[in-house]
Amino acid sequence: MSTVQRQSALPVRMERFAPKDEVSKNAQLLLRAGFIAKEMAGVYTFLPLGWRVMNNIMGIIREEMESLGAQEIFLTALQDPSIWETTNRWSDDVVDVWFKTQLKSGAPLGLGFTHEEPVTRLFTRMVSSHKDLPFSVFQIQTKFRNETRAKSGIMRCREFLMKDLYSFSRTSEEHEEFYNRAQNAYERIFARVGIGDSTYLTFASGGTFSKYSHEFQTLCDAGEDVIYVDEKRKIAINEEVMSDDVLNDLGIRREDLVQHTAAEVGNIFSLKTKFSDAFQLLYRDEEGEQRPVVMGSYGIGPGRVMGVAAELFGTESAMVWPVSIAPYAVHVLSLGRNDDALACAKACADRGVDVLLDDRNRRAGEQFAEADMIGCPIRVILSEKTARDGVVEVTDRVSDTTQRIPVAEAPARIAEMVQENTQALCR
Amino acid sequence: MSTVQRQSALPVRMERFAPKDEVSKNAQLLLRAGFIAKEMAGVYTFLPLGWRVMNNIMGIIREEMESLGAQEIFLTALQDPSIWETTNRWSDDVVDVWFKTQLKSGAPLGLGFTHEEPVTRLFTRMVSSHKDLPFSVFQIQTKFRNETRAKSGIMRCREFLMKDLYSFSRTSEEHEEFYNRAQNAYERIFARVGIGDSTYLTFASGGTFSKYSHEFQTLCDAGEDVIYVDEKRKIAINEEVMSDDVLNDLGIRREDLVQHTAAEVGNIFSLKTKFSDAFQLLYRDEEGEQRPVVMGSYGIGPGRVMGVAAELFGTESAMVWPVSIAPYAVHVLSLGRNDDALACAKACADRGVDVLLDDRNRRAGEQFAEADMIGCPIRVILSEKTARDGVVEVTDRVSDTTQRIPVAEAPARIAEMVQENTQALCR
Repeated sequence: MSTVQRQSALPVRMERFAPKDEVSKNAQLLLRAGFIAKEMAGVYTFLPLGWRVMNNIMGIIREEMESLGAQEIFLTALQDPSIWETTNRWSDDVVDVWFKTQLKSGAPLGLGFTHEEPVTRLFTRMVSSHKDLPFSVFQIQTKFRNETRAKSGIMRCREFLMKDLYSFSRTSEEHEEFYNRAQNAYERIFARVGIGDSTYLTFASGGTFSKYSHEFQTLCDAGEDVIYVDEKRKIAINEEVMSDDVLNDLGIRREDLVQHTAAEVGNIFSLKTKFSDAFQLLYRDEEGEQRPVVMGSYGIGPGRVMGVAAELFGTESAMVWPVSIAPYAVHVLSLGRNDDALACAKACADRGVDVLLDDRNRRAGEQFAEADMIGCPIRVILSEKTARDGVVEVTDRVSDTTQRIPVAEAPARIAEMVQENTQALCR
Repeated sequence: MSTVQRQSALPVRMERFAPKDEVSKNAQLLLRAGFIAKEMAGVYTFLPLGWRVMNNIMGIIREEMESLGAQEIFLTALQDPSIWETTNRWSDDVVDVWFKTQLKSGAPLGLGFTHEEPVTRLFTRMVSSHKDLPFSVFQIQTKFRNETRAKSGIMRCREFLMKDLYSFSRTSEEHEEFYNRAQNAYERIFARVGIGDSTYLTFASGGTFSKYSHEFQTLCDAGEDVIYVDEKRKIAINEEVMSDDVLNDLGIRREDLVQHTAAEVGNIFSLKTKFSDAFQLLYRDEEGEQRPVVMGSYGIGPGRVMGVAAELFGTESAMVWPVSIAPYAVHVLSLGRNDDALACAKACADRGVDVLLDDRNRRAGEQFAEADMIGCPIRVILSEKTARDGVVEVTDRVSDTTQRIPVAEAPARIAEMVQENTQALCR
């Protein structure tokens, strides 16, 4: 069901100036335009426009997770220390981002910064036979990380939503097969949210369990990582593992690489049997032999994707969202023609397009400046002049082209433009 | 898009016995049937079946919130003490359910147990003129409450999802008008999720700001409240405010009242200007006069709705979910006829029905017992016998009636039954 949202009814106020205490472009833009509000350093509320962007991103992620056959679950934020002691990850000396709290009894609890431990323990109760495998589960849940310095706007937060997927396989081969499908799903997600062209599959440290893990890194000045990109092969190496040995191993030539600053928007990990060994997540194979389950872990932060999009497609005062995640695909601006504008907006909504309608009758300059910040990719203007000419003015802000389209034809043409722009993301 | 979910691919295991440490029926059933898993007292993970029920409940709530014109936002769990000191609600002596934690600097933080304070402060930045009002916002967010004794399964938790709606109006009259619409939306929600017949608008304490608040109380043995129901008028009075004065005030006769145990599934509060006074959430009216905003607060716990539904429509070993919130509307059981059963399930899905397909070929008795626990309201059986007769056996578990329907006609008839049962909830 598509919506027409009257801007006059939206409890959002644009700010004339960026907040002084924010250094990152994404935070400046998103705060000024009323997408988010800062509660404290690294802790942001999502306002109506920002929450719509998040929902669009989470919707695309959810579709791709379901197409992998993953089941959605919802784990808990409150964490029992005993689970984390099993893997020696409870101590603040080992994990330095815990937020901890306690029950009235004084018993300590943690706030989940990730969920490998609880998800592994959970499935020890469900898995015993090879017939129970393979499967995968995912959740979109709030993580808490007690970062010493929270910066980069919504790209490194103390509290943030994260999609995490966990896979459970019988053998390394079965795991590899799923891992590759997950990798493809991630590539589709980044393409569909509009950052695919700037996002590279990146070889990174595999930690204690694998030679490499794979990160998805998006070229972006506000990123915290340095990567070396092989543009021809569309892969990259994270600086942290860059060495002659690794280049050799991957068959990459140093002269093909270009150094970039990038932000990690996703990562996928082969966990092997590290967690299943620790929690005794075992199954009996067809010969009755007990074996540990082979696991994988796959994360994406939807808030970071939103921040990266703001970095890529925005300035401090203007934004053009990819149509797939825009708060509204179409922004109809009424310059003194509210009835016509409402009719046009409704006709677009009837064709499945979400429309924001600026019915506030402010100064035109103010309406344009605010529309620039909100960043809907297609802008439609109805003014006294367009009414006299029997047209509406439609701007595709991605290609920055404007057409004057007869009133009666406009809604169908606008719906087509939305569809074309959506498809263009997945080419 | 409707789904056929193969049960063989569902990472869920039913338990033969209810857990000994759970006293409430809802927890026993939901744990045994694999809807939820217990992390610790009052802290539950939602497994795939349970999360589907939650999503159905949240979807209905969201639709009704949007039909009120409320905008969805997402506030934060981490809370800055200074906000709560403004209303004297930071001290553990005043609010005894805080979970508290701290930043690395040692600065204390709280985990939100409700969100009136942050939402009021948030909108001080957005509201200054009568033109900015009225509006309403809602969120579905995790609340944390450090309950001394967590019991009643998922009905009183230490961590739980809650939908909270906040309204911002210019005058008491404007507030009343919204409050009444919100009350109607709540009545529609409880009807649509299937507990409307047992749920009563209940007069309860208005706290320090109003004479009364309204609770929605569902008759239910596991509830923690005692209410007095006037069945004819379909209203009730919470024991906590029951007195001759109140009866007089409401025009209710004591002899019309019947005492019941009930669970609070929602509450709606007129906050008047308590929070807007504290945070100076003011607006200028048309005469330029500064006035405080009139607020309301409206809560529903989707997890508690799920627990209450389990209490109303379940035993320790069998459940019949209302079709609107069932994990799947239809459960197709293959007794040795997997190809036929899959074809039937797909044909139902093509007609917009979500189907769970038991393709596991266990003993029939086991399949039936587990299907009883999962609780899909419509059950379809395909066996050697039905195949010979060219029919499928369709049971409406609400009315407990079984029909044998020719194979070709079954999907259309099943889709009709789903629609009829959904509509019956909203009569």
